[in-house]
Amino acid sequence: MATHRFDPDFTDNVIKSMGPQTPERFREVMTSLIRHVHDFARETNLTVDEWMTGVKMMNWAGQMSDDKRNEGQLLCDVIGLESLVDEITHKLAQEAEDTPTATAILGPFFRPDTKWRQNGDNVVQDVKGGEMVFMHGRVVDFVTKKPLVNATVEMWEASTNGLYEQQDPEQVEHNLRGKFRTDEEGMYSYYCLRPTPYPVPGDGPAGKVLKLMDRQPFRPAHIHIIATYDGYKPLTTQIFDSKDPYLANDSVFAVKDSLVVDFVPREGDPQAGLELEYDIKLVPNEGKVNGA
Amino acid sequence: MATHRFDPDFTDNVIKSMGPQTPERFREVMTSLIRHVHDFARETNLTVDEWMTGVKMMNWAGQMSDDKRNEGQLLCDVIGLESLVDEITHKLAQEAEDTPTATAILGPFFRPDTKWRQNGDNVVQDVKGGEMVFMHGRVVDFVTKKPLVNATVEMWEASTNGLYEQQDPEQVEHNLRGKFRTDEEGMYSYYCLRPTPYPVPGDGPAGKVLKLMDRQPFRPAHIHIIATYDGYKPLTTQIFDSKDPYLANDSVFAVKDSLVVDFVPREGDPQAGLELEYDIKLVPNEGKVNGA
Repeated sequence: MATHRFDPDFTDNVIKSMGPQTPERFREVMTSLIRHVHDFARETNLTVDEWMTGVKMMNWAGQMSDDKRNEGQLLCDVIGLESLVDEITHKLAQEAEDTPTATAILGPFFRPDTKWRQNGDNVVQDVKGGEMVFMHGRVVDFVTKKPLVNATVEMWEASTNGLYEQQDPEQVEHNLRGKFRTDEEGMYSYYCLRPTPYPVPGDGPAGKVLKLMDRQPFRPAHIHIIATYDGYKPLTTQIFDSKDPYLANDSVFAVKDSLVVDFVPREGDPQAGLELEYDIKLVPNEGKVNGA
Repeated sequence: MATHRFDPDFTDNVIKSMGPQTPERFREVMTSLIRHVHDFARETNLTVDEWMTGVKMMNWAGQMSDDKRNEGQLLCDVIGLESLVDEITHKLAQEAEDTPTATAILGPFFRPDTKWRQNGDNVVQDVKGGEMVFMHGRVVDFVTKKPLVNATVEMWEASTNGLYEQQDPEQVEHNLRGKFRTDEEGMYSYYCLRPTPYPVPGDGPAGKVLKLMDRQPFRPAHIHIIATYDGYKPLTTQIFDSKDPYLANDSVFAVKDSLVVDFVPREGDPQAGLELEYDIKLVPNEGKVNGA
């Protein structure tokens, strides 16, 4: 194995130090993690000073994180890790014509205490500028196509200034987010903002790493959605505006072709000039999809 | 390259997203880091929930860290990373008979504001139990063997309760640490405590990872030393008590054979029943050692 000039037994010794009571899955994950982290250090001839710079970034990420911000998650996002574990977790063929709705990353701005709203409500309580959208659709069983009644659809999006409400002291609490239940036809609906692109925050380690990598920090405009129904696999996803200039170089690598949508003009509605019809397909817990 | 069933271009796309202004060394390190982190995730089929557990550990480490504690560093230490980058950085043959003093990891309990003391002073200001040691030796040029006059020797060690003074509200400030200057013969000397083994703190993520890996948390008894002299490579090391029961399974993998010492009985000194003579060999900045 060892083709380097460092102690050839070191990595194996660290791995072997795990005792017999280590949970099996933890042993598997740590064995691979230790091997890859050590290989990374040897491959790059990582110095003590460089490693310490990394430790400081990691600690800084933790210190910036609280119930409103998760900078450790964002650091992973800018190197594509959240998108990758999302792909791994779901292992679904995403581009085929008829598949369940593809997944996308949760991102750091979800709130577990999102407020219930009524179908047809407006989540836009406090926004400067922007375009209004009437978004609606059905939640259906991916296999039978039957509508799912009383399914939960949760959505959140950033405001036109690029900030989610919990990042922004100027926004009303729970602005631009809501939790809806499908009606007896499996329908959900709400008024929301046509999403706008925004940059990953530049004041923390994730922004600093992006800058050092000379990468553009913007995320393409998107609406976050989580849909759940008893007996079905919960779905976490994002849908993207087909007109967005950052679709091809999302700073966190979350775009999938099947999640790109067209907002179309809506006539005769004083509340919204645009419309989006979007059906969400959930997979039953026992359902097998494309061999997954 | 890709022998897995996930998007074969994903990792290359993340790496290729780095722009032309990326500093060369940063590109090199990030390319390897991204590749290994992605391979690790694919190899273990890492799920979103497992990854999020890791993010929470990372953020927790940062939140526990301050100017007195570095938990991110400790997390690296328990998977051997600090010892490995120490080996990489110094690339010296450590076990040969006549080499400069071997290096060892800094650890999280160094204080940059350590107090100057006089040769012959006692760093033990406030300790319950334990054995006293008179430690002394010379700082010399590794190549010419000439003594180095006015070299700095900094030392720190844990108390008998396993805590460094900054971890322990009960200990006097700067207990068990001191900064010394060698005299005109290159000699340093002080009274200190024969070190005792202690466990890595169990109240943070590093302790939790150790417990999950079913590993013993103790570090073998050691004294930390940093020696510096203008025009010479600074040396950071630890010396270990040959009688310690944890020499073979240090929880942070820092022990090297050449750093294991014998404390010998000392006669006729009311201040100390043990003695340790220990010479420190520094390498001139331009000096070539074993081809390094």
